[in-house]
Amino acid sequence: MKKLKISNNVIRRLPRYLRKLDELAENGVTRISSFDLGQHLGFTPSQIRQDFSCFGEFGQQGYGYNVAELRHEIGTILGMDRGLSAILIGCGNIGRAMLDNFCFSNWGVTLKAAFDVNSEIIGSNFNGITVFSMENLAEYLTNNKIDIAVLTVPKEVAKNVAQNLIDSGIGAIWNFTNVELTEPNSPILVENVHFSDSLLSLSYYITERQNDEAARLARLAKANSVK
Amino acid sequence: MKKLKISNNVIRRLPRYLRKLDELAENGVTRISSFDLGQHLGFTPSQIRQDFSCFGEFGQQGYGYNVAELRHEIGTILGMDRGLSAILIGCGNIGRAMLDNFCFSNWGVTLKAAFDVNSEIIGSNFNGITVFSMENLAEYLTNNKIDIAVLTVPKEVAKNVAQNLIDSGIGAIWNFTNVELTEPNSPILVENVHFSDSLLSLSYYITERQNDEAARLARLAKANSVK
Repeated sequence: MKKLKISNNVIRRLPRYLRKLDELAENGVTRISSFDLGQHLGFTPSQIRQDFSCFGEFGQQGYGYNVAELRHEIGTILGMDRGLSAILIGCGNIGRAMLDNFCFSNWGVTLKAAFDVNSEIIGSNFNGITVFSMENLAEYLTNNKIDIAVLTVPKEVAKNVAQNLIDSGIGAIWNFTNVELTEPNSPILVENVHFSDSLLSLSYYITERQNDEAARLARLAKANSVK
Repeated sequence: MKKLKISNNVIRRLPRYLRKLDELAENGVTRISSFDLGQHLGFTPSQIRQDFSCFGEFGQQGYGYNVAELRHEIGTILGMDRGLSAILIGCGNIGRAMLDNFCFSNWGVTLKAAFDVNSEIIGSNFNGITVFSMENLAEYLTNNKIDIAVLTVPKEVAKNVAQNLIDSGIGAIWNFTNVELTEPNSPILVENVHFSDSLLSLSYYITERQNDEAARLARLAKANSVK
């Protein structure tokens, strides 16, 4: 595999390729051209070829890509074979949603434990994951090598909890709190889940559709007035 | 404003610009150069100028962008001034998390009602939003013009509920269920929230850091063995 620096935009597209390739494999597709893959994803064939050229050559001119190989390669690039481990901090609504419904292991990550301050749920078990007291967090992190902290605490305590995690050696935070956790250039990796970005994209497409419809009606009205 | 077709990649970046501009405005910044804005977001100045050129010209060579104007313009492009309305379907963990913590109105969308099948919460009120019975959904949609359905039901019923929504005239779904709801080329707008894409990006950056660290240690070992 070539060792080029991959741009952030390409990295953000890789999970989408991965999901699409999984879906194709499930439907029995074993080989796909950059044209067809592009059709599925709304990308041009040349963009797809360019994306994949960042990390080496897959596929053969005229033969398309081997779906299983390409999927494996993208999974490796994304670190799915690294055996990364995670803990979840905060078992409120969003934390419970992740515990109950999100399959970390599908994505190569092992969720090891959850933490909360609420004595009513400390000791409970959700989907095989035990909830520990936040008081035991530092000790837990001393005794267990954890790669990722999933931060699903209320925003009021987000910064404090993040700082405790960092002080205990956590190097990566998956942040659901909508709070900016670190300064720019911090060595801590923070991946923010911003629901609003997704909603605003949808809002854009609705607006675009409304504009298109308005333009269509205007053209129609003009055509009718000419008649 | 120019009427060019904006690429999906640009659209996906607009909400990030918006968030950053809000943050700058909060910190009292009124004008910013494409260079500085790029520094904040990890984009090159030329990418920023190119992004903004898609929908007209902001800023003046050498003077930078007026933060408030640019923010207003991006908000308009994203449809934040369209008065879009939404309902939420499914008040489980993720639905409750959205009701309790996600401020729809911040993003120009009015959340009007929630629906669920659970009689224990029908009639309840979360953050000013009443939960109605799913039995009343079709009637509600007949009497109210709703732009967006936020779909936070269990995945087992996702497809059925989505079809009911579409049959009742819903044209856009914000989909948290991880289920593919429509066929390609469907006229229904579906915006999927894929937590896994975010986790895999984080996994990539952790892997990259591990590789960098391994390379650094290898160089160090080699340097020491030469001594």
